[in-house]
Amino acid sequence: MFESAELGHAIDKQVFDAEAPALREALLEAQYELKQQSRFPVIVLINGVEGAGKGETVRLLNEWMDPRLIQVSTFDVQTDEELARPPAWRFWRQLPPKGSIGVFFGNWYSQMIQGRVHGHFKNAVLDQAIDGALNLEQMLCDEGALIFKFWFHLSKKRMNARLKELQDDPQRSWQISPLDWQQSKTYDKFVRYGERVLRRTSRDFAPWYVVEGTDEYYRSLTVGRILLEGLQAALKAKTRPTPQPHVAPLTASLDERDLLNSLNMQLALSKDDYQKQLDSEQARLATLMRDKRMRRHALVAVFEGNDAAGKGGAIRRVAAALDPRQYRIVPIAAPTEEERAQPYLWRFWRHIPARGKFTVFDRSWYGRVLVERVEGFCAPADWLRAYGEINDFEEQLSDAGVVLVKFWLAIDQDTQYQRFKEREQIPFKRFKITEEDWRNRDKWPAYREAVGDMVDRTSTTIAPWTLVEANDKRFARVKVLRTINDALEAAFRGD
Amino acid sequence: MFESAELGHAIDKQVFDAEAPALREALLEAQYELKQQSRFPVIVLINGVEGAGKGETVRLLNEWMDPRLIQVSTFDVQTDEELARPPAWRFWRQLPPKGSIGVFFGNWYSQMIQGRVHGHFKNAVLDQAIDGALNLEQMLCDEGALIFKFWFHLSKKRMNARLKELQDDPQRSWQISPLDWQQSKTYDKFVRYGERVLRRTSRDFAPWYVVEGTDEYYRSLTVGRILLEGLQAALKAKTRPTPQPHVAPLTASLDERDLLNSLNMQLALSKDDYQKQLDSEQARLATLMRDKRMRRHALVAVFEGNDAAGKGGAIRRVAAALDPRQYRIVPIAAPTEEERAQPYLWRFWRHIPARGKFTVFDRSWYGRVLVERVEGFCAPADWLRAYGEINDFEEQLSDAGVVLVKFWLAIDQDTQYQRFKEREQIPFKRFKITEEDWRNRDKWPAYREAVGDMVDRTSTTIAPWTLVEANDKRFARVKVLRTINDALEAAFRGD
Repeated sequence: MFESAELGHAIDKQVFDAEAPALREALLEAQYELKQQSRFPVIVLINGVEGAGKGETVRLLNEWMDPRLIQVSTFDVQTDEELARPPAWRFWRQLPPKGSIGVFFGNWYSQMIQGRVHGHFKNAVLDQAIDGALNLEQMLCDEGALIFKFWFHLSKKRMNARLKELQDDPQRSWQISPLDWQQSKTYDKFVRYGERVLRRTSRDFAPWYVVEGTDEYYRSLTVGRILLEGLQAALKAKTRPTPQPHVAPLTASLDERDLLNSLNMQLALSKDDYQKQLDSEQARLATLMRDKRMRRHALVAVFEGNDAAGKGGAIRRVAAALDPRQYRIVPIAAPTEEERAQPYLWRFWRHIPARGKFTVFDRSWYGRVLVERVEGFCAPADWLRAYGEINDFEEQLSDAGVVLVKFWLAIDQDTQYQRFKEREQIPFKRFKITEEDWRNRDKWPAYREAVGDMVDRTSTTIAPWTLVEANDKRFARVKVLRTINDALEAAFRGD
Repeated sequence: MFESAELGHAIDKQVFDAEAPALREALLEAQYELKQQSRFPVIVLINGVEGAGKGETVRLLNEWMDPRLIQVSTFDVQTDEELARPPAWRFWRQLPPKGSIGVFFGNWYSQMIQGRVHGHFKNAVLDQAIDGALNLEQMLCDEGALIFKFWFHLSKKRMNARLKELQDDPQRSWQISPLDWQQSKTYDKFVRYGERVLRRTSRDFAPWYVVEGTDEYYRSLTVGRILLEGLQAALKAKTRPTPQPHVAPLTASLDERDLLNSLNMQLALSKDDYQKQLDSEQARLATLMRDKRMRRHALVAVFEGNDAAGKGGAIRRVAAALDPRQYRIVPIAAPTEEERAQPYLWRFWRHIPARGKFTVFDRSWYGRVLVERVEGFCAPADWLRAYGEINDFEEQLSDAGVVLVKFWLAIDQDTQYQRFKEREQIPFKRFKITEEDWRNRDKWPAYREAVGDMVDRTSTTIAPWTLVEANDKRFARVKVLRTINDALEAAFRGD
């Protein structure tokens, strides 16, 4: 979920200086229009990793906009007044009225995540708090509020680097707060529970925006633009108060950095290395599948990827390691008549393996947010809600002991072109290439965006995506097998 | 929540025999139309108290409709196949395809309620299960499904009477199942957790219908009619698949019995009895409010009622018992400008008392489902969602130790007429009667319905409604004071 916010997004100071004035003016104008209309309040929730620029961003917004119409609230220690009343009372009393903007630091999310990180309660109670937050937000939106939820993110490495840098600089070491030190110890937990919270509370009426906090220019422009676009859309909409889906991505990228173009497509294996590593990973898989701890688990592998990325070949190398009674390969093509008469996920649920078994999905439930989205086979509302449904589905699998590995086999456009051409040449491969495959190439950018959104929204600690550099088939096959083996071993260790 | 389903609803055999054939024909026709269109599936969930006629009703539906297009599933002990997979798999495999009806006995709700009743888990885990159910239903509805959720209810008294009757009859005693005996012991818990589940899962896209199961004719006609109306509306709607709010009451009443006309309006107190009881209840309240256990609680009393029902007088008798520093009276009239700029519940949240204190609301947040609903001051969608928001609000109060008592002061139309006339005569009371009061009398039936719905949807174990027979002011005042005192004592006992 945070992969895209760990790429080191950054923009130049010049770009920032060129863009900021116009953004600032537009934000001010939107703010006055908001006041003028006084039809709805705006609530901005600020959360995320310490040191990712939360405070600086809010300071900047106050500088850019009219601070008389922004009211910043922090919620740390409760006052006597607050302690004597139900917990939500402190939030209610700080709600911004229609026409103005309330920025909530240390809001309901901070409290529940900190509570879980420090072991004050377990997941069930966390989930109750999550429900409470969702009910509150749903109600606020039903009453017309426009809610922005920002998660400022830093990778662990960058957070530690930042702390080290500050510490080594006598002039700036005072900037490190006790919270920073604490979080450097609890980072993993903080991010894990943060992810659980984001996954369950990213709804169409109040989605999360994950913003990488490394670079101040990138961070400021990103937040400013998201606010501006959301505000402008809401000011124009006639139908408020009714919840307005922001049809916005989980992360907004201003620079050209995304997950797919951050892959090193040169990765390759020599024939010898390939054979050795393949043999060893296949033997490892066969052993793991026979391990008696496998009785408590099932294995599901999802294969998605560009056309001609080598899904079939990779699946064959996985299958080759196993007894055919242990696994089933389920190719997903157009749904049958029976499947069309059922909810979307039904055709996948029916193939969920029993404990001890392994199912390979050659394409999968991700079709809805890939091909169906890009080709317009379903309405935007359908693929937008699919992210949440899929996360929920996969959580149910994971809760039942299913080990889930998901692969996106990525090739570049040149490699695909060569492979298409080859297929046309080789008689027994000719059936694998159609006019449609050529047509799909035109939609490369659309697929690229869909893949990015898919990974951002559905790569979770319980079911992470593995992006496989597949220009070299040998490298891809070994990486696939190794990933499956690592996932199984991790699950066995966790038992 | 179950008050309306404990009134002993019944209809005559003749009425049933006269109405059943037409209903049956219409249901069959709707069923064929459903098949014809094959646009969406119908899922009927059957839950409730043992012995309330669940099985008989489903048998009857099968008899009335075409059983080839109804598929009844029961989910008791899991099979090996099911045990080897995630828990939801068993429900997915039984989903009815588009065009047909699936009746689910012993579904997800039975399992979570039984688990909680038998102490296998606490509320937090129950709430997780509730979330899972809501997510599943939301997804099914988004995919076009039409869901009916029936709760068959029997009061404890009636359930025990029924068991006794069967037991004493050697020819029928075999009809008693072990489940029946078990439930006679766990009735209170079953209904308490059942209420929690209903409260949290009654959503516009899949509301609950509570049906009293005492009388088979009443029960059958009620269920048949709800199904028919829901089906016909869905078959006509062009917009499926999108969730369609059934704008239907929680309970449907075919007979003329409702909560308000079940009150004994003759109840009265003599002057002497009144003075004695009033003195004693006032002393009791004063003592309770000074009790040191009051430091862990706050008290909120809500007064609603017909015009001229005597709210003001009752509130004065409550206040008379107390030190003015202990309580505040908040009269709710038209919202101020500041309040209009905030979400609906804001103006009530701001007056929530600190621990140790007492707030009296003279009219309250129920305005939305009473006057605003009846007068059309808000859209149906707004008052429909208000029930859930209010339950959520009151649960937050209760969780924080607030003792909540809610009164509906009921008078009959004659009494109101007399009091209006009196007010016109007495100079210092003349300000209390306006043209509008006279106009409101015309809306008596609409208010009556709104009150019934309000009590059905918001009378909960944590915040029950007390209907006060208020034709006699003396009786009403004493009942109000006694109810407050009993609630405080119960809360103190529970500490």
